[in-house]
Amino acid sequence: MHLSQYSGYGLRVLIYVGLQGERLSTISEIAGAYDISRNHLMKVVQQLAAEGFVFSKRGKKGGIRLAVSPEQLSVGQVVRRMEPNLGVADCMRGERQCCLVSKCRLRARLVEASEAFLSVLDEVRLAEILHGNAHQMVLRGLLGQDADRIGCHVH
Amino acid sequence: MHLSQYSGYGLRVLIYVGLQGERLSTISEIAGAYDISRNHLMKVVQQLAAEGFVFSKRGKKGGIRLAVSPEQLSVGQVVRRMEPNLGVADCMRGERQCCLVSKCRLRARLVEASEAFLSVLDEVRLAEILHGNAHQMVLRGLLGQDADRIGCHVH
Repeated sequence: MHLSQYSGYGLRVLIYVGLQGERLSTISEIAGAYDISRNHLMKVVQQLAAEGFVFSKRGKKGGIRLAVSPEQLSVGQVVRRMEPNLGVADCMRGERQCCLVSKCRLRARLVEASEAFLSVLDEVRLAEILHGNAHQMVLRGLLGQDADRIGCHVH
Repeated sequence: MHLSQYSGYGLRVLIYVGLQGERLSTISEIAGAYDISRNHLMKVVQQLAAEGFVFSKRGKKGGIRLAVSPEQLSVGQVVRRMEPNLGVADCMRGERQCCLVSKCRLRARLVEASEAFLSVLDEVRLAEILHGNAHQMVLRGLLGQDADRIGCHVH
């Protein structure tokens, strides 16, 4: 039981742009910093923009930045929007659907358990993840961003 | 965010053998009833036996049955044993591991959220899933087991 890669990428993007303040970040830059597929990230960023979590500016000098303050953005809110099959086990859907699903009492309990999972994340704000200048410097360092030259990707 | 196929199969096996009482069920029979791969199920059953959830008898007239009473068996307990990467997001492990993982504050919160998920399932006993003769007949019907001939798989 874990988050999908998709919503994990969504959270990573939000952490990244949350570290950049007003500066716009490109998808290539974010993909490079995390060493993940640019193609995967494009779809994720598209949804983040559609959900109103990031502001996206097109064009050569374009890029994305947070559209809401980190204090307002809850991780639970993001996961609820990004997770494709929220609270749904493999046995409840698709080709692998279990023949018991229509009468399965476990189903409601799994939904309840997922809700408990999300309730914890509802209380986590992006601001908590990013809090503190020293911590932000450490995170930028891990992302290959020189602390002296914030925003200059030096991978 | 959802249960893995592996632990989902584990729970399905326990529901199946829970419906059979003392009668031994074979892996082929269970795989047939759920229309899932026998090979996948073998590994699952092996672990269920190793964990002491099912009793396994070898040989031609062999098979498996519950090793503990449904009242004692909690779903949370099963998931805790069967889920390979409990409370671990894709970003925390393997090739996809995020470069921020060592300093990520989200990590502890995801573990906390997983614990909340499991706490709900800890309170669910297999007996709750199976309770009631009428309900058991319905489940057996969905599994292709004629209610009059319990244990005779009539797919």
